[in-house]
Amino acid sequence: MATVNPPRGMRDILPADKTRRERVLSVIRERYRSHGFDEIETPALEEYSRLHAGIGGDNEKLAYNVLRRGLDSEAIRDAAADPAALADLGLRYDLTVPLARFYASNRGQLPGVFRSIQIAPVWRAERPQKGRYRQFVQCDIDIIGDDSARAEAELMVASLDVLDALGLDGATVRINDRRALDWMLESFGFTLEERPGVLITIDKLDKIGSDGVAAELRERGAAASAVDAFESFLNRPQTMEYNPFGERQIRKALPENAPDEIVAHLVGIGDAVAAGTGRTDIPLVFDPFLVRGMGYYTGTIMELAHPSVGYSLGGGGRYDGMIGRFLGQQVAAVGFSLGFERLVDLVSAETDAAAEAIVLIHDADVPVAELVAHKARLIAGGARVRLERRTKNLKALLERSASDGYTAFATIAAGNPDLELKPLS
Amino acid sequence: MATVNPPRGMRDILPADKTRRERVLSVIRERYRSHGFDEIETPALEEYSRLHAGIGGDNEKLAYNVLRRGLDSEAIRDAAADPAALADLGLRYDLTVPLARFYASNRGQLPGVFRSIQIAPVWRAERPQKGRYRQFVQCDIDIIGDDSARAEAELMVASLDVLDALGLDGATVRINDRRALDWMLESFGFTLEERPGVLITIDKLDKIGSDGVAAELRERGAAASAVDAFESFLNRPQTMEYNPFGERQIRKALPENAPDEIVAHLVGIGDAVAAGTGRTDIPLVFDPFLVRGMGYYTGTIMELAHPSVGYSLGGGGRYDGMIGRFLGQQVAAVGFSLGFERLVDLVSAETDAAAEAIVLIHDADVPVAELVAHKARLIAGGARVRLERRTKNLKALLERSASDGYTAFATIAAGNPDLELKPLS
Repeated sequence: MATVNPPRGMRDILPADKTRRERVLSVIRERYRSHGFDEIETPALEEYSRLHAGIGGDNEKLAYNVLRRGLDSEAIRDAAADPAALADLGLRYDLTVPLARFYASNRGQLPGVFRSIQIAPVWRAERPQKGRYRQFVQCDIDIIGDDSARAEAELMVASLDVLDALGLDGATVRINDRRALDWMLESFGFTLEERPGVLITIDKLDKIGSDGVAAELRERGAAASAVDAFESFLNRPQTMEYNPFGERQIRKALPENAPDEIVAHLVGIGDAVAAGTGRTDIPLVFDPFLVRGMGYYTGTIMELAHPSVGYSLGGGGRYDGMIGRFLGQQVAAVGFSLGFERLVDLVSAETDAAAEAIVLIHDADVPVAELVAHKARLIAGGARVRLERRTKNLKALLERSASDGYTAFATIAAGNPDLELKPLS
Repeated sequence: MATVNPPRGMRDILPADKTRRERVLSVIRERYRSHGFDEIETPALEEYSRLHAGIGGDNEKLAYNVLRRGLDSEAIRDAAADPAALADLGLRYDLTVPLARFYASNRGQLPGVFRSIQIAPVWRAERPQKGRYRQFVQCDIDIIGDDSARAEAELMVASLDVLDALGLDGATVRINDRRALDWMLESFGFTLEERPGVLITIDKLDKIGSDGVAAELRERGAAASAVDAFESFLNRPQTMEYNPFGERQIRKALPENAPDEIVAHLVGIGDAVAAGTGRTDIPLVFDPFLVRGMGYYTGTIMELAHPSVGYSLGGGGRYDGMIGRFLGQQVAAVGFSLGFERLVDLVSAETDAAAEAIVLIHDADVPVAELVAHKARLIAGGARVRLERRTKNLKALLERSASDGYTAFATIAAGNPDLELKPLS
């Protein structure tokens, strides 16, 4: 018998994993909703032209495109010169393009400042690799229509609250501002044309260190004087004193005379996060070399870090140019994406403590109505109940039940209506 | 500015609707889980060949097919003669094909009797019409590996419990058995070849009445003696006495000498449903003319009815031939599909009674940190909180907040730290 599998790069989710995923989702929903965010849903399919309008960056190339219905052979031959003519729709590869389209379609029915939650699968035809799938869940919150520091702070306070609720307290947010990065590179003398390439190199600072960055910039052929200035800034003597997040830390981390407006925006975010989390040790870390990949960020950028893992658990930023794209307007927007698939892996697999889960193991000759009545009585008492016919290997059956999250069992023989519940260890 | 819409036949779901949908979903999940069902998830995409293996019936023609990645012009020209060569994947049009594929892929990790929950979107390129969408959510439970009446009873008891939990008590299940239908048609004298066409006509009995059915069967050219026998059975004198569900009702509703095995299976389901619901007035109605469209049913068929509506709220049946299809084995299976989209429309839009939902309306000059602190304090107290900047038309803002499910508001002016909560009517 040939093996039957899900499509390449995709996966089935079995009961134990599904339970954990739904539990994490319900915590995320409940906490974000408390913070005034409203969940929306868009179709999985969007029009081909919108998915390929340049908003999606490199992900556009990874889209699954949907064949037009009703094409005949002639139409297909005609399309050979223009493959895009074969597809009128595609599966979304992120939740930002759909949000921009949703906002354009529905803004008349939305509040002036719209705080959205989107939790939904996206599809990318990436090269399959361990732990990465071609269908995965994204979990985005966005605030549209607010250009103040309050918007960034609301995203962060809500997301930190989600992590706390999932038992992952102690998270911090690394924060920077694309305008600060741009100003800094300009002050070192990098030209406007050089800066996007320089950002790509800076993004590797954690991995290759300041010497590596300087070497790669020279290799790229960036202006020597600018690279020298940058290198000496990276290697400047610094005292290792601890600085809490605030104007002093930000100014110390940047070259002298950083623009007041950018610094004030960052400080404002910190004050609001302090107010929202009730913490005097603001859980923010200013990182002047945080870049984040996507080209569409226009201001604040941020990344969620947790001491238990070396990778980020989410990130986002301000992208004022994009949401209004399908409206032909400039609309303020800032978004944050939780790394749902990573969170699911971190959260413990504990079962609902509230409900007892009972397996009733019965002999084959117990009348059906009797079994169903036992089950109904236990369900009415608040339990979750599964019926299992007794198999030769009772031990294996009990082990499987325990691994499926069941906590107790009873055996039922014909003519013996009493149930004796025993714990499943 | 051109109007921007979701793809044709698809829809966006706005916050109020999304909240209601998620609430209904969580009730369905919670109740089905209590009854021992386990939720699984499969990718939205399946291989083209599996979606077009003949399991899906007419829905196969409605599939959205996904263009192969990396096709060049030459490959496209070659494919003109064989459009299927253009597509390697497709979006699922139901949850049964994916379940058969899932079971074939994962049966080694599943219990001997596997009770699955699937709640997921499906896609069909149907002609768009009012109230029907090309993406919609299906909500299926299935029991695989149990050929006893217990399986049908567990599906019904659990589904009736879901309806009760949604406030839709008083539902009943119309039930029949495809084998009873087949035996009945044979006893009237319809040939094996005629019977599928006869079933299509009988399916219209509610609409066109017994005269209409007899006329259409004659038009179809069915054997005259068989149509006569059927017509006189339909028009036989019947006393209008009430018969509770049970052997007497079933035998009275069928021609004489119905096979004992089929009657016993139906009676067994009734006994188990009585035991599971704890009701002496079994909420089942035997309907010997219930057909249900799909060709794959092999035994029991059922449809969920509620006195408040004239359409069914779900249905299902036994389809022992299909789940084992990708395994090349015969596997017992019975499924039930709740009409999720219909249920959502019936369930009231009431908000969570538990959490207070508060809108904080502030002047533009209130410091951000102060606003965020107010919000945090109320969230910590268990409320859901939205910040809104004061607009000229306060009345419109309050009305919108109320329609978004908020229950109270307060206004905040600069320099006045006190909040006075007022109800939003």
